[in-house]
Amino acid sequence: MRTVDVQLGERSYPIYIGEDLLQQAGNYLDNHHISKQSPVLIVTDEHVADPYLNIVEQSLTASGFTVVTAIVGAGEQSKSMSVFEEVMTKAIQGGLDRKSTVIALGGGVVGDLAGFVAGSYMRGIRFIQMPTSVLAHDSSVGGKVAINHRLAKNMIGVFHQPEFVLYDLTTLQTLPKREINAGLAEMVKHGLIWDKEFAYWCLEHAEELKSVDMTVMGYGLEKGCSIKAIVVSRDERENDLRAILNLGHTIGHAIEAVAGYGEIIHGEAISIGMVGSALIGEQLGGEPGLVDTTRRMLTALGLPTVLPERLDTDRIMEAMMHDKKFQEGSMTFIVPKSIGVVEINHNVDYDLVRRVVEQLKEEV
Amino acid sequence: MRTVDVQLGERSYPIYIGEDLLQQAGNYLDNHHISKQSPVLIVTDEHVADPYLNIVEQSLTASGFTVVTAIVGAGEQSKSMSVFEEVMTKAIQGGLDRKSTVIALGGGVVGDLAGFVAGSYMRGIRFIQMPTSVLAHDSSVGGKVAINHRLAKNMIGVFHQPEFVLYDLTTLQTLPKREINAGLAEMVKHGLIWDKEFAYWCLEHAEELKSVDMTVMGYGLEKGCSIKAIVVSRDERENDLRAILNLGHTIGHAIEAVAGYGEIIHGEAISIGMVGSALIGEQLGGEPGLVDTTRRMLTALGLPTVLPERLDTDRIMEAMMHDKKFQEGSMTFIVPKSIGVVEINHNVDYDLVRRVVEQLKEEV
Ligand SMILES: NC(=O)c1ccc[n+]([C@@H]2O[C@H](COP(=O)([O-])OP(=O)(O)OC[C@H]3O[C@@H](n4cnc5c(N)ncnc54)[C@H](O)[C@@H]3O)[C@@H](O)[C@H]2O)c1
Ligand SMILES: NC(=O)c1ccc[n+]([C@@H]2O[C@H](COP(=O)([O-])OP(=O)(O)OC[C@H]3O[C@@H](n4cnc5c(N)ncnc54)[C@H](O)[C@@H]3O)[C@@H](O)[C@H]2O)c1
Ligand SMILES: [Zn+2]
Ligand SMILES: [Zn+2]
Repeated sequence: MRTVDVQLGERSYPIYIGEDLLQQAGNYLDNHHISKQSPVLIVTDEHVADPYLNIVEQSLTASGFTVVTAIVGAGEQSKSMSVFEEVMTKAIQGGLDRKSTVIALGGGVVGDLAGFVAGSYMRGIRFIQMPTSVLAHDSSVGGKVAINHRLAKNMIGVFHQPEFVLYDLTTLQTLPKREINAGLAEMVKHGLIWDKEFAYWCLEHAEELKSVDMTVMGYGLEKGCSIKAIVVSRDERENDLRAILNLGHTIGHAIEAVAGYGEIIHGEAISIGMVGSALIGEQLGGEPGLVDTTRRMLTALGLPTVLPERLDTDRIMEAMMHDKKFQEGSMTFIVPKSIGVVEINHNVDYDLVRRVVEQLKEEV
Repeated sequence: MRTVDVQLGERSYPIYIGEDLLQQAGNYLDNHHISKQSPVLIVTDEHVADPYLNIVEQSLTASGFTVVTAIVGAGEQSKSMSVFEEVMTKAIQGGLDRKSTVIALGGGVVGDLAGFVAGSYMRGIRFIQMPTSVLAHDSSVGGKVAINHRLAKNMIGVFHQPEFVLYDLTTLQTLPKREINAGLAEMVKHGLIWDKEFAYWCLEHAEELKSVDMTVMGYGLEKGCSIKAIVVSRDERENDLRAILNLGHTIGHAIEAVAGYGEIIHGEAISIGMVGSALIGEQLGGEPGLVDTTRRMLTALGLPTVLPERLDTDRIMEAMMHDKKFQEGSMTFIVPKSIGVVEINHNVDYDLVRRVVEQLKEEV
C-alpha cells in the first residue's frame, strides 16, 4: 500500500493507493472517524455500480454504517443541474444530515458531481473519494468539484477537500482501454509540467501502464498524485502556480467543445492540446525537440497527437474566445520550455495560436 | 454612518449602516478594491429593481465598473434550482470571470440566492450584500447562503462571506409594513438570545421601529447585526453556539411548511415559534413570566403570537420529524431560561413539544 499526503493545513488528507482496498472500505471509514449515527451516501455510475457497489456497500454495512445509494448515468452528461438535483433528492430522502458523508465511487465525473453534492448539501458535509479510473488520480487531488452549466463546463462548483481518497487499483482492470489511455494523458502531464524523470519513466513504462500492471500503475498514480499534491498545496485556490496543471487544456477544451463532448474524450483532447503547447513552446524559444519528444511520449501511451482535419480551425479559435483576454489579441497559456519545465505566459499571441492549431492537423 | 465589524479572521468584513448609501455604492466598491477589469453582476428582485437598481447601476457605472443585472421574481420561490440556473446563465453571458463580483441588492431571498451564485460561480467569486429589508440584517451576517430543494428549505448552499455589507436604511421606507414587522422578529430574537437590555429596548421603541424612524431603526439594526456577528465569530461553521440563532425556528419552520410558504411569512412564523420556545422554557423551570414578556414584546412589534387553529397539530409535529433525533422521542431546542438567556437543550421531549403546539393555539 502506498500513501500520498496532500498537505493543506487543517484540510490535509491522505490518498491510499493499493489493491483490493474497496473490500476494506468500512475499516477506512472507521479509522477516519466517520459517523455511524448518520447515513452515508454512495454516489456511483451505472458502469461502476455493477462490479463494485456491492463490495463497498457490504464492507460499510458490515462495519455498522447505514448506506444510501445514488446510481447516475455514465458519462459527462451526469455533471448536470438535473442529475445534481436528483442526487440531492436521494440524499434528503435517505435522511442525510450534517454529520453524514458522501462517497464518490467512480471516475472523474462521479467525483466532481458527488463532490459538489457533498460541498453544498446543508452547506457542506464530509466527502470521500474512491476513484476507479486512471484519470481520477488527477480529479481526486485538489478539491475542485463542479458540475457543468449548459453554456460552459465546470462552471458551478466549490473547493471541497475530501477526508481521504481510497484508490483501489484492482478496479482499473475493468476500465475500458480508451479510458485507461486517456487517464495516462493526465499522468504524463504531471511529468511534463514538473518532473522530467517521471515523464521519461512514463514513456519507458508505457506498455505496462496501458496493460495496467499493478506495480507499475501503482507507482505512476502515486507519482502523478504527488506532483499534483505539491502544486495544489502551494496554491490551493489557483491564484497562480496551480494554473500549470492546465497544460494542454485551453486547446484541449476547445477541441472537446467543437468535436461535441464525448467524441474526443478529455484525455485525448488534452493530449492533442499538449502537443499544441509544445509547438507554442518551441516557437517561443523552448528546447529543440520538445514537440517530437512530447509526441513520442503521448503516442507510446496510445494517445492521439494530431487534430482531425474535420474540426474547423475558426470554430476552435472561437471556442477559446470566451476568454476575454484573448479578445484583446493575446491570452494566457502554459508554455513548456523543456520536458518537465513550463512557464505561465500571459501574452501568447492570437495568430501564433491559430497557426499552431493549423499545424496540429498535419500528419506526422 | 454606523459600522459593525464581523470578526472572522481573514474573512472579516464590515457592515456599513446609514442613509442614502446606495448612491455611493461605486465609492464603496472602489475602497474595497473591487476589480474594474471584470464585470459586476447585480442580482435583485422585481420589487427592489424598480426603486433602487438604477441608483446602484449609475453609481457603479460612474465609478467605471461594467455592470450586468439579473432581476428575479419577488419571493421565496426564487430560491429555486431553476432561478439559480437562470442567474448563472446571466453571469456566463455577461462574461463574469474569476475576478468578478456579485452584488445582492434586496432582501434575504436575493441575498441567499445571489450569495450561492457567488459562492459557486467558477468555484467562488467575490460577493457584496446590499440589504433592503429589515430581516436582511440577519441574513447578511454570517455567510450562510443557500437555495431550496423542493423537499426542504435552504438545503443546497455553502458558507460564503461577503466583502462588505452596505445597508442603506433609506430603502426600508418602501418595504411593506408586514415585511418590516417580520424583520423585527429577528431583531428582537437577537435580544432574546443574548441581550436582555436590547430586548426591552425593542419593546420600548416598538412604535419608532415599526414606522422606520431612521435613527431608532439604525440603532436597532446595528445592535441586531452586532449580536449576530459576535455569535457567528465564535462559531462560524455552526458546531455549537451558533445554534442559538435558531430560537423559535424549529416550530417556526414547521408552521411555514404546513401553512404553505408565503401564507405565514418567516418572521411571523418564528414569532409564534419563539412563544413556543418560551412555553417550553417556562415548563422546564425558566423564569416566571417568560411567556408573557415574550408575547408582549412580539405583540408590540406587530407580530402574531397565536397559532391559527386551522393548522393541524399532527402535521406540524410531522414537519418537525425529518429531524432524526426527534424520531427517537426527543430533540434539540433552543430553550429560554430568562429574557436574554437561552440554553441549547438536546433532550426536549416529543410530548412536551406537542403540548406546547396545542397551547400555542389558545387565544390570550
Ligand atoms: N476535479 C478535478 O480537479 C478534475 C480534474 C480532471 C478532470 N476532472 C473531470 O473528470 C471527468 C473525467 O473523468 P473520467 O475520465 O474518470 O470520466 P468518467 O467518470 O466518465 O469515467 C469514464 C468512463 O469509464 C467508466 N468507468 C470508470 N471507472 C470504471 C471502472 N473501474 N470499470 C469500468 N468502467 C469504469 C465510467 O462509467 C465512464 O463511462 C471530467 O468531467 C473532468 O471535468 C476533474
Ligand atoms: N442566510 C441567512 O443567514 C438567513 C437568515 C435569515 C433568513 N434568511 C432567508 O431570508 C429570506 C427572507 O428574507 P426577507 O424577509 O428579506 O425576504 P424577501 O427577500 O423575499 O423580501 C420580502 C419582500 O419584500 C420585498 N422587498 C425587499 N426589500 C424591499 C424594499 N426596500 N422595498 C420594497 N419591497 C422590498 C421583496 O421583494 C419581497 O417581496 C428567507 O428565504 C430566509 O430563508 C437567510
Ligand atoms: Zn484534465
Ligand atoms: Zn430566521
